Amino acid sequence: MTKNIAILGASGYTGAELVRLIHGHGGMKIAALSGERKAGMAMGDVFPFLRHLDLPVLQKIEEIDFSTIDLAFCALPHATSQAVIKDLPRDLKIVDLSADFRLRDPAAYEKWYGQPHAAPDLQAEAVYGLTEFYRDQIRAARLVAGTGCNAATGQYALRPLISAGLIDLDEIIINMVVGVSGAGRSLKENLLHAELSEGTNPYGIGGTHRHLGEFDQEFSGLAGRKVEVQFTPHLAPFNRGILATVYVKGEARAIYAALEAAYGAEPFIHLLPFGAAPSTHDVRGSNHAYIGVAQDRRSGRAIVFAALDNLCKGSSGQALQNANLMLGFEETQGLEGLALFP
Amino acid sequence: MTKNIAILGASGYTGAELVRLIHGHGGMKIAALSGERKAGMAMGDVFPFLRHLDLPVLQKIEEIDFSTIDLAFCALPHATSQAVIKDLPRDLKIVDLSADFRLRDPAAYEKWYGQPHAAPDLQAEAVYGLTEFYRDQIRAARLVAGTGCNAATGQYALRPLISAGLIDLDEIIINMVVGVSGAGRSLKENLLHAELSEGTNPYGIGGTHRHLGEFDQEFSGLAGRKVEVQFTPHLAPFNRGILATVYVKGEARAIYAALEAAYGAEPFIHLLPFGAAPSTHDVRGSNHAYIGVAQDRRSGRAIVFAALDNLCKGSSGQALQNANLMLGFEETQGLEGLALFP
Amino acid sequence: MTKNIAILGASGYTGAELVRLIHGHGGMKIAALSGERKAGMAMGDVFPFLRHLDLPVLQKIEEIDFSTIDLAFCALPHATSQAVIKDLPRDLKIVDLSADFRLRDPAAYEKWYGQPHAAPDLQAEAVYGLTEFYRDQIRAARLVAGTGCNAATGQYALRPLISAGLIDLDEIIINMVVGVSGAGRSLKENLLHAELSEGTNPYGIGGTHRHLGEFDQEFSGLAGRKVEVQFTPHLAPFNRGILATVYVKGEARAIYAALEAAYGAEPFIHLLPFGAAPSTHDVRGSNHAYIGVAQDRRSGRAIVFAALDNLCKGSSGQALQNANLMLGFEETQGLEGLALFP
Amino acid sequence: MTKNIAILGASGYTGAELVRLIHGHGGMKIAALSGERKAGMAMGDVFPFLRHLDLPVLQKIEEIDFSTIDLAFCALPHATSQAVIKDLPRDLKIVDLSADFRLRDPAAYEKWYGQPHAAPDLQAEAVYGLTEFYRDQIRAARLVAGTGCNAATGQYALRPLISAGLIDLDEIIINMVVGVSGAGRSLKENLLHAELSEGTNPYGIGGTHRHLGEFDQEFSGLAGRKVEVQFTPHLAPFNRGILATVYVKGEARAIYAALEAAYGAEPFIHLLPFGAAPSTHDVRGSNHAYIGVAQDRRSGRAIVFAALDNLCKGSSGQALQNANLMLGFEETQGLEGLALFP
Repeated sequence: MTKNIAILGASGYTGAELVRLIHGHGGMKIAALSGERKAGMAMGDVFPFLRHLDLPVLQKIEEIDFSTIDLAFCALPHATSQAVIKDLPRDLKIVDLSADFRLRDPAAYEKWYGQPHAAPDLQAEAVYGLTEFYRDQIRAARLVAGTGCNAATGQYALRPLISAGLIDLDEIIINMVVGVSGAGRSLKENLLHAELSEGTNPYGIGGTHRHLGEFDQEFSGLAGRKVEVQFTPHLAPFNRGILATVYVKGEARAIYAALEAAYGAEPFIHLLPFGAAPSTHDVRGSNHAYIGVAQDRRSGRAIVFAALDNLCKGSSGQALQNANLMLGFEETQGLEGLALFP
Repeated sequence: MTKNIAILGASGYTGAELVRLIHGHGGMKIAALSGERKAGMAMGDVFPFLRHLDLPVLQKIEEIDFSTIDLAFCALPHATSQAVIKDLPRDLKIVDLSADFRLRDPAAYEKWYGQPHAAPDLQAEAVYGLTEFYRDQIRAARLVAGTGCNAATGQYALRPLISAGLIDLDEIIINMVVGVSGAGRSLKENLLHAELSEGTNPYGIGGTHRHLGEFDQEFSGLAGRKVEVQFTPHLAPFNRGILATVYVKGEARAIYAALEAAYGAEPFIHLLPFGAAPSTHDVRGSNHAYIGVAQDRRSGRAIVFAALDNLCKGSSGQALQNANLMLGFEETQGLEGLALFP
Repeated sequence: MTKNIAILGASGYTGAELVRLIHGHGGMKIAALSGERKAGMAMGDVFPFLRHLDLPVLQKIEEIDFSTIDLAFCALPHATSQAVIKDLPRDLKIVDLSADFRLRDPAAYEKWYGQPHAAPDLQAEAVYGLTEFYRDQIRAARLVAGTGCNAATGQYALRPLISAGLIDLDEIIINMVVGVSGAGRSLKENLLHAELSEGTNPYGIGGTHRHLGEFDQEFSGLAGRKVEVQFTPHLAPFNRGILATVYVKGEARAIYAALEAAYGAEPFIHLLPFGAAPSTHDVRGSNHAYIGVAQDRRSGRAIVFAALDNLCKGSSGQALQNANLMLGFEETQGLEGLALFP
Repeated sequence: MTKNIAILGASGYTGAELVRLIHGHGGMKIAALSGERKAGMAMGDVFPFLRHLDLPVLQKIEEIDFSTIDLAFCALPHATSQAVIKDLPRDLKIVDLSADFRLRDPAAYEKWYGQPHAAPDLQAEAVYGLTEFYRDQIRAARLVAGTGCNAATGQYALRPLISAGLIDLDEIIINMVVGVSGAGRSLKENLLHAELSEGTNPYGIGGTHRHLGEFDQEFSGLAGRKVEVQFTPHLAPFNRGILATVYVKGEARAIYAALEAAYGAEPFIHLLPFGAAPSTHDVRGSNHAYIGVAQDRRSGRAIVFAALDNLCKGSSGQALQNANLMLGFEETQGLEGLALFP
């Protein structure tokens, strides 16, 4: 039976990506789209690549009749999301793509986001949306918090190692090279083609990037002790993709085995042969993630790589995967498309 | 019923694009893949983005048992294709993506390709693969010749105008900006990222580009007289996409009406509002093409734009669309994916 | 003797390019920099690649003491420029990079820019800054109007042909592929890397681009009759460069000879061998322009190509070349740098 | 007095970059250019952006009369370089840009390059070309070995810290994001625009990259004990630039002070304010390098960033800087050009 879907905040990249994915799903119908500043516009005017589709006109959120909606994707900006969701019907299934419900601890939220949470009860209710590790809770959840795209990538590389006690928890360094679309449709000089193409730069350096809040929460939870990783993302001139290069102290073969055990049955997480490293070129536009492990020349040190598409597996694809679980579809439905290459 | 498919020459970009599209088709099974120099390799080693699929190992063509194959896509290089196809079973359905069977006239073939044709009987048998204009013949064909990607783009802009007698046939100028993948996986200095990115250049200038042979054949056939267009392609640093900007003498509104009549019912060809121009960004990875018409400031002069993805609608997508017709599938099956944006 | 230079509107790309070029000039000292919204900031904070230079802090224009300035480059936005320049000392030498003084006819200005000119007397005084064709007037000028970058490119291809009466004046089509920096540092969605990379689109179509005003003025002036060209620019994902592909009716060899005669002694305009086409890759970052001519397959039709760097030869390099003339330097001083390749 | 210069192996990117830099030098004349496979060609046919220069035709090396040459830049492939240099006149000044003379220890050479060295006496004679740290020896040297571009970048970040004993020598991790031109003009599929643009991937992983040989030699030499760093480069889609992100254990403020002391008087190495990180956009085409230091959220851990242009400061610019010292020019002559931005 077809499910009615609303996308709130449809005028950003994750909203458009949701429309793209749902178009190929077969069991979902987009029944409502919201866009505050662009209310009244056709989706095809906001994203011309969608103009030949028959889609609802963008509305203001308060104009949407949620009684007919089976599930809402909430792709609103951080902070806006919690303000909106707390006023939505309390029986509406929601997958939130913002950062608002990722951190369970109100103090941690305030620390990383600089203000108290506006809906702490919902914060407590929300299930963390890293599908492969929260599958059962997601299936039963009403409100799922999509993970940060960097946070997801780093966790795919590290969770099985931490769970298995295979690495030194004080010596984890997560280096990332990330594509442009992660910054969203923001009008900033450094995101202009003229300034961003043809070079690279680190950002959010020195332990300031907000996705550290997620790493801290999840890794400390897994380890049963405080774990603080070091994390440096670098912006590079491609639109989709995150490559995590994770430096750890541990035995590479044991690490490989733990990853193999963790992901052997997963439909979207693939472990490469030992010693091989993934490329983001191979996941552009797909919901697949690739993991690789290499041994450093010094024993006891290993590198774990993870590559995924930040807009798909790192955000909207993950959201649809979770929605599939929440609505009773096959988990992979609508998500089996291959990467676009070249 | 599932049809068995072979892809000959699967190690190039059009071969990989066929695998990508067929993966989402639902009614086709890839039963054989050939690659002469890469025979014995797994497809996932040639194109890592395919590595998690269960695909046949690359073979030499002579190793393939064609008795179980329902249709073969032939993505071999020009000249190789005719040599191979003439030795394939004469009842095998074939969609050829090379230039070898596009020109019906052996003399025209020799003029543009510099050597006599090796299989003139097949040349006579082949149906030109521009689906929207040869649909019925393609449905009944055994051998379909995929069009040139530039040739397809220009024809979408021009055929209805020529058929309707709306433009001056001696004054047609086709300017194109084309993406990189059209040159294939060739190892040439000018195709290296270091040399191709960050600039543009024309090529095939002065009436030398081979796709002119197709324009001449098709436009002259439509007009019932010799038509020679002027055509200049420009290479620009993006991977997928062709934008044709066609300068014609004629009344823009009448031109618009003719295009509207021609494409109103087409599933993949979309006419934009009068005065709007398409962008290749909106067709990247999709089988859709967009057409636009603008009036110049001087009356009697118009510009017609056409945008499509050279690897998809201009090549492998067209090939699958034709194969659908030849095998009795819905014409659009496996081709309804949206563009990847951003 | 070192000349004191002011750059008004130094926080845009043409301002930064002027700083880059003047840094290598040897006879000029940057004595003042203005930036309205960024007044008080160091230039190195606005453009970090300049941070190791010893440059004046950005000021408001009214804070600058022009009595010590020998020449001001005015890189302000259109319309702002005329409002500022009319209040500057009337004996100050000025090279304006905006569109404000390019059109001599107040009616033409109002037609293309949508409002009456604020300083019609200065409009009459200004000399059009296409160095190679206005060299003597520029040498004697107080106020020089830099040309449009597209307008310069098209004129390099066409002026000698029009002057020599070699082409059909009613049949000129100028097609361009232009880089991103021509749009300046504007915060627009279509200029974001995520939206602009990986594709191309036409803009300013149907005879609406403002540089047509310059073409009309200059070509009509040369021809002694009204000349209206057709002009379509295309935005493509590279930062610097314009490639003009100009379709004309005339004899290609005669056209080549006229260009050879016009540019044989020019230090920055180079004619390629007959039949060769230029690439913008070869002029990135340099003040050189390349011209090429090809014969179409039909006699009487030719294509003329011109390639230059819009920020350098098309704007700031031209401005410095003109300033050299106005201040008595060698015309080429500070401008002999080669393109950056790759 | 003008010095006569030969460039051996002028048909690669470092050769072309040398021509570009020497063109603006003022005290050097390019008297000979070699290119084995392209002997007889004009340099402007190999690199069209040089076509308007008056340059010697490419020769075979044996055709060059070295008696009139003051200094030869040797931009030949690895292994070829040693074979050629050992047969050149023993009084000819040489700056070699290959890897052949970087490692002083024949055993280390054989380990990293897989074969015995063909000219071990010259290997012993060669001075390592990291200008800022070998300045006096370079001034007196006959044969200078240009450093690896990655090796230079990492050393700028680390040498002062190791010399001052400020960091844990067993815990150094060097992560890099590197541009495309570092791979040279090699015809490989992964360097094609179609395959390299729009994504990133690590390479040379697990302690296999040859520049580790240089790190080992130099860092162990400075420390007086064996130092083995961990090093992972990532290829990203821009043409020029290397960004090193170096993870160390040490006090960030002390590290900053050591870098300030080391580079305060250097003309080309600039330390950013504490906590700021450099971008490769700011060094594209220039001989400048930027260094930054940030404190991790955990005390005792710091990150040091270094950014430079691999073809200029990392290779040909360094070579010219060294040649200036060897020939008695100002060290900065011909190298003061600014980055090209945007």
